[in-house]
Amino acid sequence: MDAHDASMSDGERPVCVAVDWGTTRFRAHLVGGDGRLLAGVASDDGMSRVAAGAFEGVLTRLCGLWLRDHPGIPVLMAGMVGSRNGWREAPYVACPAEPASIAAGVLTFEIAGGVRVDIVPGLVVDDTIADVMRGEETQILGVGVDDAIVVLPGTHSKWAVLRKGRIETFRTYMTGEVFALFTGGSVLRLLAEPPADAAAERAAFRRGLAAASAPGGLLANAFQARAGVLTGRLAPQDVEPYVSGLLIGSEISEATKSAPADLPVLLVADGVVATNYREAIEAAGRSVAVVDPERAFVDGLIRIARRREETDVRLR
Amino acid sequence: MDAHDASMSDGERPVCVAVDWGTTRFRAHLVGGDGRLLAGVASDDGMSRVAAGAFEGVLTRLCGLWLRDHPGIPVLMAGMVGSRNGWREAPYVACPAEPASIAAGVLTFEIAGGVRVDIVPGLVVDDTIADVMRGEETQILGVGVDDAIVVLPGTHSKWAVLRKGRIETFRTYMTGEVFALFTGGSVLRLLAEPPADAAAERAAFRRGLAAASAPGGLLANAFQARAGVLTGRLAPQDVEPYVSGLLIGSEISEATKSAPADLPVLLVADGVVATNYREAIEAAGRSVAVVDPERAFVDGLIRIARRREETDVRLR
Repeated sequence: MDAHDASMSDGERPVCVAVDWGTTRFRAHLVGGDGRLLAGVASDDGMSRVAAGAFEGVLTRLCGLWLRDHPGIPVLMAGMVGSRNGWREAPYVACPAEPASIAAGVLTFEIAGGVRVDIVPGLVVDDTIADVMRGEETQILGVGVDDAIVVLPGTHSKWAVLRKGRIETFRTYMTGEVFALFTGGSVLRLLAEPPADAAAERAAFRRGLAAASAPGGLLANAFQARAGVLTGRLAPQDVEPYVSGLLIGSEISEATKSAPADLPVLLVADGVVATNYREAIEAAGRSVAVVDPERAFVDGLIRIARRREETDVRLR
Repeated sequence: MDAHDASMSDGERPVCVAVDWGTTRFRAHLVGGDGRLLAGVASDDGMSRVAAGAFEGVLTRLCGLWLRDHPGIPVLMAGMVGSRNGWREAPYVACPAEPASIAAGVLTFEIAGGVRVDIVPGLVVDDTIADVMRGEETQILGVGVDDAIVVLPGTHSKWAVLRKGRIETFRTYMTGEVFALFTGGSVLRLLAEPPADAAAERAAFRRGLAAASAPGGLLANAFQARAGVLTGRLAPQDVEPYVSGLLIGSEISEATKSAPADLPVLLVADGVVATNYREAIEAAGRSVAVVDPERAFVDGLIRIARRREETDVRLR
């Protein structure tokens, strides 16, 4: 099949398998022509757990029935699967990046059964600072607006400037990873207990948020999660939400300083992460709208695929 | 023997065993009456590796010959050995703390053979912030001046305000621990290689130092140690010194903001740590004098012991 047959406008008939294949998670959806998610699968088979040469087997094990039932359906993927240590490398596309340049960077190959696999490239910034992303570029193109500061919380949170549909630049904050390091392997873990009461948890999160702009910075205010418990100011159950508030507050305090004031803030998150970031961004004086991450990812993939179709058609 | 017999002014005759017993290290010296270090021993038998009930055995194994050869010699110690999970708890003394209040908080007990053990208490701050130290209070009292900002780099760096011989307050920065977390267990480790060339290492350290005051803060500028390697701005050998410079620079940038401008900065450090901190503190516009950590520790212990003798004499 060629790209034309995979047209994205055939209503409910499945038109693609959309795969978000990151470092630690694999998530796939069977997508209808109207963008509806017809079926889904998720597993811990993230890139870091898949040996070189084993990617096709994982895909077939998790999505094989869809591929069998819908012959010729293409598989569109984004995320760390396209990195040097992933399945195949889709080299970074430079910022500023447009839908067209991202679509032009898509890596296409065929696997057993003639199934076409498309891997969306990541983005790179290389001017006064260096930065990289893989997977978030697809969500950014799926947020549904052309002008925004797009915030994507996570292990490595991204703050991207989207203007006239173009991803101008972005910046990574190691917020989620540092939270895992602090609460999983540091001295702060020693006195911590799992949060118990929702109201107390929220109060501790807010204390962390406030501490993010207190004297001492991150390195000193993190230690409060130990010294505070030793002196009885913090309960052992407060440690995790306090550290979470401190780190999210530090990210947002820095990121909002550099964020253009004329653009609205769009938060791509759900669940407690969305609640926490929304509160922290509003506390920093910016209003914020929330976009569902899964929806943004699939919409971004479809948008990139359509752009490829148009290009293919033009080339013929 | 009583405190009077352990007088600290008998010249070269060994007058005490001085033990710096921290979380990960045990260090002891046989000390002459003039403060000279007559013999030393060090091992990895830090508090965290010693089971409850096994502390006396470790001390006897490492210092038993000194105790046998010098009957009646007291053992003076400070550090995490006096914490709740140490040998015996010497409860924190509150700041502002004077030599007298620290001496009054010393925990004294006798072990086999009638050997007297003194454990110096840690300090606690509990006002607008909470903070704790164990071991550094002894070094601070041993720096040889009564007015200074005393900087003690380490896993948990301390910045203490010493005025008229009194430790007014202090603040902990998790610099060393975060360096270990970043270079040992984070995504930054993946592209890192051990530093090779000394000049390149110093240049990368300086880039990290400069990045500490660049937009984005710690959470974003740390990620440069990954993105920078991916884009070729940093060599894999630059990762560790860059991260070191970034963290030390972040500590010093925050700490110097709060440090009283009228006090000189005293750095209690040696080796490469002293070189790095001195450069970073001078880059922040403060001059700095360096004090040997081992010397400060032993001098502080002797000072606290003398103060106890005087008190004992007064009480008689």
